Amino acid sequence: MTAPNIETIVSLAKRRGFVFPASEIYGGLGSSWDYGSLGVELANNIKKSWWRWLVYERDDIEGLDSSIIQNRNVWKYSGHETTFSDPLVDCRACKGRYRLDKLQDVQCPNHPEAHPGEDKECDLTEAREFNLMFRTTVGAVSTDEDESALAYLRPETAQGIFINFANVLNTSRRKLPFGIAQIGKAFRNEVTPGNFIFRTREFEQMEMEYFVRPEDAPQIHQQWIDDFHGWIQSLGISAENLKLYEQSADELAHYAERTVDILYRYFPERADEEKQWDELMGIANRTDYDLRVHSKKPEDAEGKRINPDSTDDLSYFDEATKQRFYPYVIEPAIGVNRTLLAVMMDAYTEKSNEKGETRVILKLKPELSPIKVAILPLAKNKPEIVELARKIKNDLQPSMRAVYDDTGGIGKLYARQDEIGTPFCVTVDHESLEDNAVTIRDRDTWEQERVAIGQLKEYLHKRAG
Amino acid sequence: MTAPNIETIVSLAKRRGFVFPASEIYGGLGSSWDYGSLGVELANNIKKSWWRWLVYERDDIEGLDSSIIQNRNVWKYSGHETTFSDPLVDCRACKGRYRLDKLQDVQCPNHPEAHPGEDKECDLTEAREFNLMFRTTVGAVSTDEDESALAYLRPETAQGIFINFANVLNTSRRKLPFGIAQIGKAFRNEVTPGNFIFRTREFEQMEMEYFVRPEDAPQIHQQWIDDFHGWIQSLGISAENLKLYEQSADELAHYAERTVDILYRYFPERADEEKQWDELMGIANRTDYDLRVHSKKPEDAEGKRINPDSTDDLSYFDEATKQRFYPYVIEPAIGVNRTLLAVMMDAYTEKSNEKGETRVILKLKPELSPIKVAILPLAKNKPEIVELARKIKNDLQPSMRAVYDDTGGIGKLYARQDEIGTPFCVTVDHESLEDNAVTIRDRDTWEQERVAIGQLKEYLHKRAG
Repeated sequence: MTAPNIETIVSLAKRRGFVFPASEIYGGLGSSWDYGSLGVELANNIKKSWWRWLVYERDDIEGLDSSIIQNRNVWKYSGHETTFSDPLVDCRACKGRYRLDKLQDVQCPNHPEAHPGEDKECDLTEAREFNLMFRTTVGAVSTDEDESALAYLRPETAQGIFINFANVLNTSRRKLPFGIAQIGKAFRNEVTPGNFIFRTREFEQMEMEYFVRPEDAPQIHQQWIDDFHGWIQSLGISAENLKLYEQSADELAHYAERTVDILYRYFPERADEEKQWDELMGIANRTDYDLRVHSKKPEDAEGKRINPDSTDDLSYFDEATKQRFYPYVIEPAIGVNRTLLAVMMDAYTEKSNEKGETRVILKLKPELSPIKVAILPLAKNKPEIVELARKIKNDLQPSMRAVYDDTGGIGKLYARQDEIGTPFCVTVDHESLEDNAVTIRDRDTWEQERVAIGQLKEYLHKRAG
Repeated sequence: MTAPNIETIVSLAKRRGFVFPASEIYGGLGSSWDYGSLGVELANNIKKSWWRWLVYERDDIEGLDSSIIQNRNVWKYSGHETTFSDPLVDCRACKGRYRLDKLQDVQCPNHPEAHPGEDKECDLTEAREFNLMFRTTVGAVSTDEDESALAYLRPETAQGIFINFANVLNTSRRKLPFGIAQIGKAFRNEVTPGNFIFRTREFEQMEMEYFVRPEDAPQIHQQWIDDFHGWIQSLGISAENLKLYEQSADELAHYAERTVDILYRYFPERADEEKQWDELMGIANRTDYDLRVHSKKPEDAEGKRINPDSTDDLSYFDEATKQRFYPYVIEPAIGVNRTLLAVMMDAYTEKSNEKGETRVILKLKPELSPIKVAILPLAKNKPEIVELARKIKNDLQPSMRAVYDDTGGIGKLYARQDEIGTPFCVTVDHESLEDNAVTIRDRDTWEQERVAIGQLKEYLHKRAG
């Protein structure tokens, strides 16, 4: 089973320390979230899995970590200054502010039965474009209005990759096709953030830009769609909760030739099946748009695009064909936060115990579990048992994430570990002092097995990875 | 030996893809830097080492990842809005802008023999306080001037920990003493950033706040000073390039009772020994200042500090003594970027090869090396050798970072790996096809050893960790 709705995960996440409302003691800050002890481990494990799969296991991808604040020209020439905006309207009657393209999704506060603009008392202004980039000012300038010091928080990590294309190419001696991968924070001043960590103004992206010969782009694009569809399932997300979506011509970004989204069933409670799905990730063929626009004084087909500010040409010279051209870019882009939400929803399971009480089990893939094994002493007032339990924890720790917990009765401790997705509990009891063995309990089956302490590490490695 | 100066590392870092100037194709952005393929691995390994040591190997520290943008009240009550500033003066004659407290460190552009203010033509304005926090605006407001939407980029990660104190306490059932650890970006609008990645406006912190009983604070503070002094050396930084510095009363931050800095010899080229040192990290006793100021309506000794905006009281109830009090906080705070710079400087070594040419070796601790082993085929035109080399890479990859490289002659490939700190090179040659063995070359001694392919993994694990 999966979680019945996002609210179930919000509640579990807060109760168990995965995700807290940010700035909570000051009333929050419009859909901002902080990651607690377990949330940061789960997020880190998702990032590690992505990085290992792309950068370590393949031989054609380099890592990168570029700055959040870049020179303003990056966003001028990428097109974000002029096109990265939402159309907003204000209602003079109810004082509400709405996205013109999302009026159907909200209600008029004065007339909840109508959408803004539908009721005759509504008085909407003309739409104006609201740029989604956060603005700031760099350096000790006199006022915030000094345009020369204006800068933005990056709305995507991708541009940091494009502007470093030549640096990476020169230092790595790569030949096409090859990719550059980056994980990092991005910021979008969304008008209506919401749905927990699904849409937030501050979020974390995992983006990879894969540079290819233009003629190879369609086939390699399809390959990355297939590969990411597989990778998402390798995180434990079931195929029936995933759906591929081909963007239509009028949905495509101005730089994209084709984009396929992978949707997750974030809203299983909605009666209309079509409305159950929303975007987990997108895989775009960005063409040669980005490398072209950041190159010194290039002209496009119509002779319009000039870039006198760039100092470099980001074209590629092919030794084999002796040709120079701008590579095409295939971009699989996925959010850490949306992945974490999908992983938690898909792992969420309820089960009845023998007393008929409902218990929550988070059936995470062991690779993603914040904690791989919990060591629990059956009698915390017996020093030999506590000492042995702590020793087992310390012996396991170098090779896997282990915790020691003695803050409750064994039934309560098991239930806690089930809820946070720990695949195994190890119980140290009186007998352990004599037979040098412990009881291992499985999260998913609740079955128990007696294992010699000397074989514990091997047993757990085989099962928890 | 260590690097003769920071410039040597700047050059190596750019040449080999550790660190690039950010926004380079647009002329940069005042001391901003992007981390390339090797830099991101080195930084990640430093972060992993810190996290493992604090969060995994101990049993008293929880992890956290809080937002960069928090509610403005966090910075109002922390004191940053009023006190986190530098005094600036402008010169009406030369149009320069200077920090009043650093006039001795700069030259007057019109009269380079004098410091600003010393020459009679200088015409300095009155000093004004320049707040170092980056400002931005959250949500779809009409103008940047709308104060209700004003927000800051965090200038330190610490406050995200304090405002989550109750959340972590409640979900983790911790008792004093315990800590909360966080790694993340912070931003300071420095007037004069510089010295490569030593002082940048965007940087990454590793901060841990350790909550203790007030009476235990002095002794636990000293323990953390000793422990971090040891941890830094465990990264391969030599003791003779480290120095403890006790802040004097007038240097202490307003919240600190005692702060000890650990200095690194970042400027070994300076004749004046006193000027060779600068701050790598600080370990502060912040008293109960932070938990107090973020608590609902507390009054300090003089009855002045009132906080009507907070919804929570961040005091702690001690079950044993039945007393309620505000814990003291010990804070070891260290920058990822400054650590990376110190690690690279300390690992930098030059060595003469048999032809008398100077070679660079980066003698990183294997734990920190971006790449643990490089697999090099001796003949890239022989498919069986290439295939075997790739197979060895793939077999090693799951358990350690391995790369395959065939883009040069063997001497050149060895030199490349030495420069980036790879502890071992494995050469696959014609004989390997017959004796199932390879040659392993050691980075530091340049000695070679023949090892059976079946024993390779164990051999490397023993030496490269």
